[in-house]
Amino acid sequence: MKSNLDCIPCFLRQALEASRMATDDEEVQREVLDEVMDILKDLELESKKPPKIGKYVHRAVKEITDTQDPYKKIKEEQNEEALEIYPKLEEKVESAKDRFLTAVKIAIAGNIIDLGPGHEIDLEEEVEEVLSKELSIDHYDEFRENLERSETIFYLGDNVGEIVFDKILLRELGDKEIFYFVKGAPKINDAMAIDAKKAGIDEYAKVDVVGDGRPGTGPERDSPEFIERMQEADLVISKGQGNYEALSETPANIFFLLKAKCPVIADDLGVDVGDIILK
Amino acid sequence: MKSNLDCIPCFLRQALEASRMATDDEEVQREVLDEVMDILKDLELESKKPPKIGKYVHRAVKEITDTQDPYKKIKEEQNEEALEIYPKLEEKVESAKDRFLTAVKIAIAGNIIDLGPGHEIDLEEEVEEVLSKELSIDHYDEFRENLERSETIFYLGDNVGEIVFDKILLRELGDKEIFYFVKGAPKINDAMAIDAKKAGIDEYAKVDVVGDGRPGTGPERDSPEFIERMQEADLVISKGQGNYEALSETPANIFFLLKAKCPVIADDLGVDVGDIILK
Repeated sequence: MKSNLDCIPCFLRQALEASRMATDDEEVQREVLDEVMDILKDLELESKKPPKIGKYVHRAVKEITDTQDPYKKIKEEQNEEALEIYPKLEEKVESAKDRFLTAVKIAIAGNIIDLGPGHEIDLEEEVEEVLSKELSIDHYDEFRENLERSETIFYLGDNVGEIVFDKILLRELGDKEIFYFVKGAPKINDAMAIDAKKAGIDEYAKVDVVGDGRPGTGPERDSPEFIERMQEADLVISKGQGNYEALSETPANIFFLLKAKCPVIADDLGVDVGDIILK
Repeated sequence: MKSNLDCIPCFLRQALEASRMATDDEEVQREVLDEVMDILKDLELESKKPPKIGKYVHRAVKEITDTQDPYKKIKEEQNEEALEIYPKLEEKVESAKDRFLTAVKIAIAGNIIDLGPGHEIDLEEEVEEVLSKELSIDHYDEFRENLERSETIFYLGDNVGEIVFDKILLRELGDKEIFYFVKGAPKINDAMAIDAKKAGIDEYAKVDVVGDGRPGTGPERDSPEFIERMQEADLVISKGQGNYEALSETPANIFFLLKAKCPVIADDLGVDVGDIILK
């Protein structure tokens, strides 16, 4: 998916948010914004996916604030908050008419956690809202059919907290070989191996990593190397906006589960902001 | 009121919004954003009020898109939409227990129109919401007392559409000498004399202008010249965020009526975003 002009103010907003988590020093925060404006000014937006630009932006935040993981604290809180309501999510699946659809929707509901701090989110309310909503793009039947004949599944995780909601869906996938991918290095509030462990993802899947191209962080999710691996899996479940932005045009058997939270993505999908998607 | 770092992404969002109203050419829109980033990079934010920065930003929009009034079309629509519900607003005042308080709140409700395009607003719903809400800063009694002993009133208008809501309050101010100030030159979706005329403001007040410092546009609202005039008025009614940003520290008998719609202003006022204010 291509970036567009809306991404410019949005990346600056993100850079400010991340800087504020890393430091209280407003001069340093300002330095970050100035650097990000320099980066954005020289960029050909149209030829770049948003996560690529995000990489430059968040690298600048890390370097200037001298903080490797600005979202560390908020990530821990988000995982704990999600784990607190996990038993209730299990109950919802147990008591549902269509337990698999309910699990799918709960996994999508978890995607709201991406909005991050500054946006007060009532997780339980969000779950109720998503459960009562229709999928705006609804490839649920194809998804089920594909799953039935799949042995090896790749599941691309998204944010901390959200991964707890994914566990609900993982539990319903049955007896398959599942690889759950998290990030190999800190990236906004994306989940890493340590977060997946805390969420107990390893009860249902093998945790593996995608990285940002730097040594030791794993292959990038849209690298030829990783795309080849995805093509060997029978089915890929991709969670969230970032994975959609990176992989929407990838030739592999990918089902995207997400909530459309930004106008650029909603436009690309042909849906409204706030809609839930299984594509 | 001082600008802060939140203003940087917000001004870029505004510049993109204005550029899109002026032209469909994405290359020109991009040129505007690049120019605005140059402007923001060199600015000492802390020493400047947001309207001052807005002036630089929107001047860049006008120059690069070669459009003197990008908001022209949306302004016309907003005035018409507001005029359509005007009779209903009058009815609400007529049937109210406290008709003056109702008129004050309707004037504040009109301030939501500032949000502009892209934000779908149901004006009638907004009026209902504001009428059912308490003022978060409530100097209503002082306002009434001051009004009673005032002969000359300055009323500083804000946006097109909103001015129709102001007319409801103007009608209740009684037999005073009222000067209603609009902008002497196009400025985002702020009202100008032609809009005030269409709204019928001149039934209740003399329409006068404040400008942006350029010849023929009138004195700026925070210029020594205009502040001196305000000090001679018995009472000044200031509508909206822009006037608050420009005049919050001005030594004159000013009552600010607004809805706090941005976090920077809400923070300055010590209220929550969405709160309504009579200060």
